[in-house]
Amino acid sequence: MTLIAPTERTTLHRRANRGCFEREVINAILDEALICHIGFVVDGQPFVLPTTHARVQERLYVHGAAASRMLRTLERGTPVSVTVTLIDGLVLARSAFHHSMNYRSVLVLGSAREVEEQSEKRAALAALVEHVVAGRTADVRAPSAPELRATTVLCLPICEASAKIRSGAPLDDAEDLALPCWAGVIPLRLQAGAPLPDAQLRAGTPVPDAVACYRRPAPTPPAAAESVGD
Amino acid sequence: MTLIAPTERTTLHRRANRGCFEREVINAILDEALICHIGFVVDGQPFVLPTTHARVQERLYVHGAAASRMLRTLERGTPVSVTVTLIDGLVLARSAFHHSMNYRSVLVLGSAREVEEQSEKRAALAALVEHVVAGRTADVRAPSAPELRATTVLCLPICEASAKIRSGAPLDDAEDLALPCWAGVIPLRLQAGAPLPDAQLRAGTPVPDAVACYRRPAPTPPAAAESVGD
Repeated sequence: MTLIAPTERTTLHRRANRGCFEREVINAILDEALICHIGFVVDGQPFVLPTTHARVQERLYVHGAAASRMLRTLERGTPVSVTVTLIDGLVLARSAFHHSMNYRSVLVLGSAREVEEQSEKRAALAALVEHVVAGRTADVRAPSAPELRATTVLCLPICEASAKIRSGAPLDDAEDLALPCWAGVIPLRLQAGAPLPDAQLRAGTPVPDAVACYRRPAPTPPAAAESVGD
Repeated sequence: MTLIAPTERTTLHRRANRGCFEREVINAILDEALICHIGFVVDGQPFVLPTTHARVQERLYVHGAAASRMLRTLERGTPVSVTVTLIDGLVLARSAFHHSMNYRSVLVLGSAREVEEQSEKRAALAALVEHVVAGRTADVRAPSAPELRATTVLCLPICEASAKIRSGAPLDDAEDLALPCWAGVIPLRLQAGAPLPDAQLRAGTPVPDAVACYRRPAPTPPAAAESVGD
């Protein structure tokens, strides 16, 4: 277990038991979430925009069109907040007050830098595709030089971050337990439907397993067979 | 169709065709999304936190513990950004560059006010429960006076807002169409599992239909039977 150092800004002041600074937990939430919400400030006004992200070791990458207003703001090193949230269930208590949700969220604070080095940029763009569909980069055309120039990639180190997690049953007041009201949890998860092939798909193109059986978190690949010594 | 007036801050400068200012579209996205991400600024640092919301007509409500840092910051009328995002599918193109997602998101900008008036506060708290499970307030214990005092409710008028929507197939370059690579869309939706009853549930408590068959957007209630004149 590796801990990320708590800071005043990432420490929960209420319900501190829901906070978590374990890097493995934070990484798993970042990896399972398809998108993040990025917050940044322009002329005192916060903006929150959704985008995809990818984690590589202790770095978070986001990307966008080089012409994008968000990217041009962030590449100047302005303070940024990146939040991902997984909704695991609805917590239905016997009182309106104790209704809640089960969720896992991560908050990362810091400043992003633009990735200029071409091999890091290519690796980050590949990670962004792999983050969404594991194995996909092997099947698709890699970015061309003009596509690379048209894309800005930003890197945010994951060094000021925390997770917040709620799980389990409703927490009702003792005197409400006798109420004639259903209570419990409705589990929720992001579910994939049957893949819709593109109208221009070449006949006979096979559907990759990672597409046909899409799910998050991605299934863990089988462990490599142990090498047998002689 | 009612339009919300575009502002410089809510106008898309790129891919303007994905932007939408129709109030009915914006409302439907706000209503379907279970949670929003709220952005606010403390000492120049943006924070983005997930929370539940509810829309009542042209107002957005959020709530939290009166002691919460976020609520205490927002109730001072500081600029706020509220974003909701629905992920509808993964768009798998033949090139890494043209990968995308189908989504519907809404951005609301403004300043929140604390709801002090008790009937508006009660109505907003009921809307927050109804937003998650339609019909739930009729079944549960309403907030007590101490619970009301312990809860802060904020109201953000939906008057500076826009939606951004991407739908449909991948948009590949013509020269990539011949690549031997699967392309198309993986549809995604938030799916409810079988409800998990609380361990302390009274035996024989029925599961309400809205819980047993939970889905989003909530099914439209059947139209009331026409009153027959005599």
